[in-house]
Formats: sequence, structure tokens, C-alpha cells
Amino acid sequence: MTSPHSESDPDAPLDGEAAIIEAYLAPLAAGYPGAFGLKDDCAAFTPAPGQDLVVKTDPVASDIHFLRDDPPGDIAWKALAVNVSDLAAKGAVPRAYLMALSFPEAPTRRWMAAFASGLAEAQAAFGMSLIGGDTDRRPGPVTISITVIGEVPQGSMVRRGTTKPGDVLFVTGTLGRSALGLALLRNPALAARWSIDEAAAAAARQGYRRPQPRLAMRDVLRRYASAAMDLSDGLAKDLGRMCRAGGTGATVSIEAIPRDPVASAAVKADPARWQDVLASGDDYEILVAVDAGKAAAFEAAAMLAGREATEPFGISRIGAIDATGVVRFLDGNGRPVTFARTGWDHF
Amino acid sequence: MTSPHSESDPDAPLDGEAAIIEAYLAPLAAGYPGAFGLKDDCAAFTPAPGQDLVVKTDPVASDIHFLRDDPPGDIAWKALAVNVSDLAAKGAVPRAYLMALSFPEAPTRRWMAAFASGLAEAQAAFGMSLIGGDTDRRPGPVTISITVIGEVPQGSMVRRGTTKPGDVLFVTGTLGRSALGLALLRNPALAARWSIDEAAAAAARQGYRRPQPRLAMRDVLRRYASAAMDLSDGLAKDLGRMCRAGGTGATVSIEAIPRDPVASAAVKADPARWQDVLASGDDYEILVAVDAGKAAAFEAAAMLAGREATEPFGISRIGAIDATGVVRFLDGNGRPVTFARTGWDHF
Repeated sequence: MTSPHSESDPDAPLDGEAAIIEAYLAPLAAGYPGAFGLKDDCAAFTPAPGQDLVVKTDPVASDIHFLRDDPPGDIAWKALAVNVSDLAAKGAVPRAYLMALSFPEAPTRRWMAAFASGLAEAQAAFGMSLIGGDTDRRPGPVTISITVIGEVPQGSMVRRGTTKPGDVLFVTGTLGRSALGLALLRNPALAARWSIDEAAAAAARQGYRRPQPRLAMRDVLRRYASAAMDLSDGLAKDLGRMCRAGGTGATVSIEAIPRDPVASAAVKADPARWQDVLASGDDYEILVAVDAGKAAAFEAAAMLAGREATEPFGISRIGAIDATGVVRFLDGNGRPVTFARTGWDHF
Repeated sequence: MTSPHSESDPDAPLDGEAAIIEAYLAPLAAGYPGAFGLKDDCAAFTPAPGQDLVVKTDPVASDIHFLRDDPPGDIAWKALAVNVSDLAAKGAVPRAYLMALSFPEAPTRRWMAAFASGLAEAQAAFGMSLIGGDTDRRPGPVTISITVIGEVPQGSMVRRGTTKPGDVLFVTGTLGRSALGLALLRNPALAARWSIDEAAAAAARQGYRRPQPRLAMRDVLRRYASAAMDLSDGLAKDLGRMCRAGGTGATVSIEAIPRDPVASAAVKADPARWQDVLASGDDYEILVAVDAGKAAAFEAAAMLAGREATEPFGISRIGAIDATGVVRFLDGNGRPVTFARTGWDHF
């Protein structure tokens, strides 16, 4: 077995699971005593008294959730961020995660070092620690299967299915940046067609590669939200899920949908790009339903939380929950808009 | 979307993630309120006061951990059992699990129904509930990534790295049955070469497909064990890990290794089959180190626990922990035995 600290070729493949764990993963677990340095079969997680654990597992795979040539640090960030985004939407504090890595062929030391470094950044940003996992080789895409553990005071997890007719609908940040960033990664020539500069294109690509879970929304959600969920498969599809879970419907004004300059430019140059804003995945913003009587207070509190966040974000009122059982998107003239597809289905 | 309760073709592929979750997975979560019927983004797990959670993730993949033509119910059983086996070795009570399923192509209703049925059997046998997960399609083998959550009184998780020189080494059940079962599945003609009848061959195949986590050992381990771990990658390799984690060594008498009639017959016909007994994976028995002064009491308690278990098992004294820093296997004449390979490396 090659010592990871030797002078040997950083582009040589890593030899064996133990080399990966000891050199690159164990340091990520050093902060949590119950991880036992990743040297035991299991981790021991000690919950704080009076807390519920909020748990979630959402694997990401190469060429589906990230591009195989994405920087390894960004791949790591995204793999953890997409899971933490769910915790954020539930009002939970991230605490720990387990990670199962699967490679079709052994990664190089260079790749693994960059991956571990991105993971270190992400877990520090989100306030959590690696506590266990598994590494193996099998055919198919590189896959990173993360299970996150967060905490909320008992019984206070913000639910998805608890919308009520009359609730006002809000969304954090802007939509479509990630989908447009992916489009730019696949076809850089689009930047010229949309008349955006390199800085804007870079921001969109960053949106795809390094989503920012809206953890700053935690207290605001727990205090005001009727219901919330993170947007991973596109607003159209995810709002449909929220309404189905609650037995409600919704009306959204597409002119109220928050877009950043890239999305505005793309839609202006090519109106079909609305699809990317409303019905594409990977936004990782939070969709929130708030009782109408609390909407103003929520909006003010969310605006403040977003402004003070490490990665600032805004809050937008986009529509309302109703009892119709269907989700409608209306254009500036109040006419219903339909889409060729309603969002990303992983299946 | 095809209704799963329609009269349509059970061999048609299932259409969409929602169809799989609603028809086949949600019923497995019905017993746990915090699973919210698998309709939320996360599950809420309420720990019992004063307990640590013991957590573990260990994915299984087709053609690596099971055979693609194995009965789907057995695949499901094994996917959960290999994770629960770790909980058993740690003295933990299984409580809940999350499961991410990944398919290269949509499963049929027939396959999915049988899979869910095996999972229902397994979770009932182990006393736990599905509380969350994810289903997607991607290239590569069918993969089942399970994360299990168990509980132990705070601070009482049985560790791997806490062996002490002088500890007596025990193992539950018998070793090699699963590896020999796999050999028989790959080459049924071996049964004749080993002179075993169909009932014995079937038991070995069952050992590979339906491992039995030794949950009955829980109280005995927590009361007596210095250290314990489950055997998933072969005794030689896993004992090496246990000793490395504890900074100890060990000596094992191979004549003391417990073998069932199939292993005895296979080794008698072909001594190279010792490899399957000592250095092949998938045993899912528990390796236990016990202070010499407690060894007799442990042995009696473990024997009783094994006899009264739903799937009875024995307990065998196989050697001792020492301070040498190396693991040695001795034959009947006290001579060291070496192996061509020391166990299954997933990497």
C-alpha cells in the first residue's frame, strides 16, 4: 500500500479502501468523538436531550447530479449540500453525516485530496462532521451516497404536507441559476447568445456546482412556516408535490418568480428558457407556505436572515395556496402557462 | 402512471419513482409516525431519552454482494441484514432505516413486490421500520444503500478497538457457510464433489442469501465483551482489523473454528476450501473478545442466548488476544498457517 504522504505520483490510483479512509476521510471525522476515527463498524451519535433527529439520504451520481469533469471539491460540496438543503427546509440544525463512496475505478490521490478538501469546506460551512461510511468499487458512475442527521426541538420539524388554503407562497433566492449554469457548462457559446459576461456565466456555473443550503432560514421557518420544502426538482414539480401532500392547490404568478441577471438575460434572449427557471432541478432554494396573517412578519424576518447570511439571499412572494387541488402558473395577463415538462424526474 | 393494483402485466416495468414509493415502500413506513408516510423530504426520529444512536451505512450491489438472479425477497433481506449485523455486534437495538434504491432500468411490479415483501419480513424480524429514502435510475448494478439507526444506553456501544492482551476470542455460529453457498450457486456440481445432499446445499445457499444478524447477543455483549465486531469480510481480515484498532495481536487455533456439516464436508473433500472458512466474506457472525476472568460466564450466557434465538446459534472459543501486533492462525500441530488472500477487500 502506498503511503499517502510519500513522494509518489499524485495521479497514481489509490490502493485500497484503508488508504482512502485513513488519509482522506478520517480527518473529516476528527471533530466527533462518536465517530471513533472511522475505525469502528458503527458511529455512536448522542442526541441532545429534547431533540428530534431529522434524517435524509439522497445519493448523487456522476453525469446525473454532477459532471464527471467538475472539480472534485465542487462534487463533494454539492453531494453534502443537496442533503443539507433538506435539513434547512425542515428547520433543522445539521449535526453529522455518513457517506458511502463508490468508484468504478480507484481515484487518484490528487482527485481524492481535492474531494476531501471540498468536503472539509462544506462540513465546516454547514457545522457538521463526518461520522461513518463505506468505500467500494463497482461498475457504473462515481456515486456519493450521503445520509445527513440534523436536530430540531421535539415535534417541531417543518413539514411538507401542512399547507392551508389562503397561505402565502414564498421562495428564497432566485430560481434557474443552476439549470442555466449547467446549460452553460454544456454549451459555453450560450453566454454570447444571452449577452452575459464571463463573471455572470461563472456565477451561474457556480450555482450548479456549489448550491448554498439556506440554513439561515432555520429559525424563521420554525417560527412562521405552515409548510416548507427545498426545491431540488424544479418549482413546478416540487410545488405539485407540496400541494398533493397537503390536499391543496396553488396559483403562482410567473412574473413574481425571482430571477438573477443571468436568468433574466437568458429568458429575454430565448423565452423557452422559462423552462429552466420554473421546471428544472437543482435550485436548492426553499419554498415556504405561510399563513396570510403572518406573511408580512415572515417576509421581514426572512429578508433580515437572508441579508445577514454568509451567502446573502432574498425572499419573494410568488403566489398563494388554494383549495383547487391543482397548481396553476399565470403570466402577466393572468393567463395560465403550461410547460412541456413539469420538472426533473430521477426515475 | 399505472396503478399497481390494476390488472395490468406484473412483468411490465414500473413507471416512475412515485409508483414505487406509494405502492411498495410507503407500507413499510406505516408503523413509524416520524416517517410521515414517506411523503416528506425528511423523517423525524425521536430518540429514547438516555440513549445513543448507533448508525451505519453499507450499500450492497448486484453481482458484488448478491447475484442478480437471487430471489428479490432474499436480496432485500440481505441488504438490511448486513447493516443490522453491525448493530448486533455493537450491542444495539435496531430501530429504523433509510434506503436509497438505484436501478439501471425500471424494475417490474413482480420484482418490486417480492423485494418489498422480503424487506417487510426482514424489518419485522429485526424490529425496525423504514423511515425514508430515495429511488432513482442510473447505469451500473442495482444498488441498495441502507443506513440503519439503532440504540444503546449512552456510552455503552460495544467497540471494535478495545481488545486487551489476555482476552479470550469467541465467535458465534459457524464460518464459511455463506462463501460455500455462493460457490454452490456458481457451480452446483460442487455438491457432488463434496458429497453433500440437497438439504445441506440449500442450507448453504440460504446462508449466502439470508444471513441472520445475531441480535440475541445484545445483552450478553453489552455485559461481557471487551470488544466485538461482525464478520463481513472474513475472519482473517476482520480479526486483523480488530487487532489493528486495539494495537493488539491474536492467535487462533483453526481446529477450533466452528464449521457446519457443509464446511466440514467441503474442507474434507478439498482442503483449499479452508480459504472459504477463514478468509471469505459474508459470514455475519460476531467476533467477540472477552476478559479471561469473564470468559466462562460469557460463554454460558452466549450459549443460552443462542439456543433461545429464533434462529439458534452456538458460541465457540477460538483463540486469544495478545500483545504481538500480529494475527496468527495455528494448525492442530501448533504450526502457523498462511493464506493466499486474507479476506474480501471491497476496493
